[in-house]
Amino acid sequence: MPLLEEVLQKIKPSSEERRDLDRIAKEVVSKIQRLAQSRELECEVLIVGSAARKTWLSGDHDLDVFIGVPEAGSLEGALDIARDVASQHEERYAEHAYVHAIFRGFELDLVPCYLVKDASCILSAVDRTPFHSRYISGRIQGAEDDVLLLKQFMKGARVYGSELRVGGFSGYLAELLVIRYGSFQEVLEGASLWRPGETIDLESHSVLSHEDPLIVVDPVDPKRNVAAALTLDKMFQFAATSRCFLKHPKIEFFFPPAPCPLADKELLESIAKRESFLVLIEFSAPPLVEDVVFPQMRKAEQSIRALLERGGFAVLRSEVDLHPEVDLHQPMPSDGGIVVDLSVDLGETNLKSDSESHKNVARLLFELETESLPVVQKRMGPPIWEGDHVERFLSSHSEILSGPYVENGKVVVETERKHTSPVELIRSGILNLSLGKHVGPQVRRGYKICVDQELLTVKDRDFRVFMARYLSARHNIC
Amino acid sequence: MPLLEEVLQKIKPSSEERRDLDRIAKEVVSKIQRLAQSRELECEVLIVGSAARKTWLSGDHDLDVFIGVPEAGSLEGALDIARDVASQHEERYAEHAYVHAIFRGFELDLVPCYLVKDASCILSAVDRTPFHSRYISGRIQGAEDDVLLLKQFMKGARVYGSELRVGGFSGYLAELLVIRYGSFQEVLEGASLWRPGETIDLESHSVLSHEDPLIVVDPVDPKRNVAAALTLDKMFQFAATSRCFLKHPKIEFFFPPAPCPLADKELLESIAKRESFLVLIEFSAPPLVEDVVFPQMRKAEQSIRALLERGGFAVLRSEVDLHPEVDLHQPMPSDGGIVVDLSVDLGETNLKSDSESHKNVARLLFELETESLPVVQKRMGPPIWEGDHVERFLSSHSEILSGPYVENGKVVVETERKHTSPVELIRSGILNLSLGKHVGPQVRRGYKICVDQELLTVKDRDFRVFMARYLSARHNIC
Repeated sequence: MPLLEEVLQKIKPSSEERRDLDRIAKEVVSKIQRLAQSRELECEVLIVGSAARKTWLSGDHDLDVFIGVPEAGSLEGALDIARDVASQHEERYAEHAYVHAIFRGFELDLVPCYLVKDASCILSAVDRTPFHSRYISGRIQGAEDDVLLLKQFMKGARVYGSELRVGGFSGYLAELLVIRYGSFQEVLEGASLWRPGETIDLESHSVLSHEDPLIVVDPVDPKRNVAAALTLDKMFQFAATSRCFLKHPKIEFFFPPAPCPLADKELLESIAKRESFLVLIEFSAPPLVEDVVFPQMRKAEQSIRALLERGGFAVLRSEVDLHPEVDLHQPMPSDGGIVVDLSVDLGETNLKSDSESHKNVARLLFELETESLPVVQKRMGPPIWEGDHVERFLSSHSEILSGPYVENGKVVVETERKHTSPVELIRSGILNLSLGKHVGPQVRRGYKICVDQELLTVKDRDFRVFMARYLSARHNIC
Repeated sequence: MPLLEEVLQKIKPSSEERRDLDRIAKEVVSKIQRLAQSRELECEVLIVGSAARKTWLSGDHDLDVFIGVPEAGSLEGALDIARDVASQHEERYAEHAYVHAIFRGFELDLVPCYLVKDASCILSAVDRTPFHSRYISGRIQGAEDDVLLLKQFMKGARVYGSELRVGGFSGYLAELLVIRYGSFQEVLEGASLWRPGETIDLESHSVLSHEDPLIVVDPVDPKRNVAAALTLDKMFQFAATSRCFLKHPKIEFFFPPAPCPLADKELLESIAKRESFLVLIEFSAPPLVEDVVFPQMRKAEQSIRALLERGGFAVLRSEVDLHPEVDLHQPMPSDGGIVVDLSVDLGETNLKSDSESHKNVARLLFELETESLPVVQKRMGPPIWEGDHVERFLSSHSEILSGPYVENGKVVVETERKHTSPVELIRSGILNLSLGKHVGPQVRRGYKICVDQELLTVKDRDFRVFMARYLSARHNIC
């Protein structure tokens, strides 16, 4: 397809770019080896990730370098070496500490890991990455361009990235799909036919069933689902976009125009046209990495949404916004769809590093059908023949306007609604909600509510882009 | 219980009343027998109903007289005789013609019927009545007062009467309950424990199962459910009131105060307090008996309610009103809970007689949560993986404000709502709805809509009582 050629011209690294990357990689490897020798540290240096298997997109200047030590060894020595590779560096933390460095214009992730015999007996999630790298390297030759096309296509569809904000496809998952289906085109054809529970098991491990919408058994670790972080909606956003592209192939699928931030007039007109009632809650985001904050934001969103719905308000849609958007680095330098285990106490170690510590704003947007509800409120009780329940139901309701009466076999009363305005309801209830470990305290520290046209007072560009996306909400489905 | 004595004093016919009734009954019987003799008509005259078994409430001056002819005979001769019993009479019609007459201050129903051998091989529903009368007469002795108390209690709870407007208990059903449980008090205790599907089978016929909420197998015709006309809600309104009375016996259960018609100020205040949005649709009722019109009114109510709900409006409650209320006579002179078969073409024969043909008003009331809805409207489509359905769904929606997008695995679009006002929606859709065979044409001839405070323009007393009941909606449930 000439269209795909055109795309490849834009995304495939030039021979010059490749040469640069190779040179830098060799330089880093030999620098680490020299440092290890001088300190008598037994280790193996591995270039992993897309750079190692020629599936990186042009313009990406990321290099993942793993410093493997024997299982009996210590990661501390490897971390020391990592610190000394480049003066311009900072320490980051996932399950273990690692170093993020800038080296001759490249972004390096220098990650200490254990060299284990088998990927099923790793000590830390990063130990799995070298196995992924080896598995893909041995099978992807000749199909690298297909991986590039697929990654770019997924970016265009906004489903690329396994970080929790996106909930999409990791690079490793994209590579496995190309191995499974054979080519870019065939991945799209395959995805067009997906249903929830679709299972891909390259090595026929046929292991325990997962509840996830897409199950891709990790060829190097059969108990693990490579697609665990993929949400149902992102899975089928991809499937629908694939179907759509196969019907009407266009270059815009790969390079969709970026939405323009809405000007006051456009925002005002869009809001007015819908006639719904928008409620925006704004507060300071906790100073933690996005993969920690984002799930808590979703939790807060769900809790407030449930509060509104319990109060009788119909919520048309809700959305979460975190700004300024942190660079799209993953918190862990792996391409294997690894997700930070949030069950461990993240404590101080997940504090954002200095370079990210500008103040971040968290926003929750709720779109309601109405600005207010009537005082009268219908309360459905238990079946009328359950005498004890009926009695308890009636004694728990005062301020009765009508009833009790029987409707479809149930006892019903109509009472006075406590909060007829959603803002009132939120203000009265928000501090009793479960909003997430770090988001909760931030909200308690203070929050601001804007409704409808008051949203115009929020001038920040990111928010106006967010609103443009929210109001259009258009995906390639056809 | 002294309370019950007090009630009986009010509802039990005095010996004078009994004497009057006996005298009149004898007079009617002998008049019919004389007429039959002179015309050489072979027939048997039967006093049936509550008068025959001393279970009529004081003040009721109704007498059901059946003129039975052999199966081979003709009802026409019997009808001729009925016409000649009293000069002040009119013909009415259920499955067959019968005569309603005023005779010495009593209301007589003179009903020709066939004398069949067994109630299971009747030719017409009225043929069953003599069997009912014989069954009850043989078993009710000594418990007549309990029947009186139960009937009055049911009247107080507004669940007495098997006509379709009420959907409650017939007199025959009340008598069977007393036979089943033994006494007034025991009926209430029994009903307190009812659950849907409760079955009473006095003669252990154990016949085919019914889907009705209460199944009382007719002792004289095992295939028939005596409680077929009883609705779930009336059944449990009775059960709940029974439970309530047993806890807190009060004379008001038997003689609840009649609601006062609401004055303008009261009506206005009640409406304003609720903050809901009331929509009243008014038109001329078809000139037919209530048992024909009422089910059609319910059908119209349900159709319009569904229209509103499809349009996105939350309907809090809806109600039907027919005024002026026709006297509470049943359209068929039977006490057996017999319901007119509406599947037959009722044609002209169900035209109300002259005495009832003053113009009747039909009203449908809908109480909505809101006066208007926003333009934006969320349309949930099929699962995103059903490609053909998705395509059809999308091509059937224009005026898209947002989307298509994927939500919980389904395709969603947000479109422009066609009618944001419920009145607009009703006006645009009502004539395409199924509103009932006779109600539909009446609505097509013209209707009026009032909303909210415009209800004050309806001054008629019955409507103001209807609104008092609607707004209170209080039943004895505790």
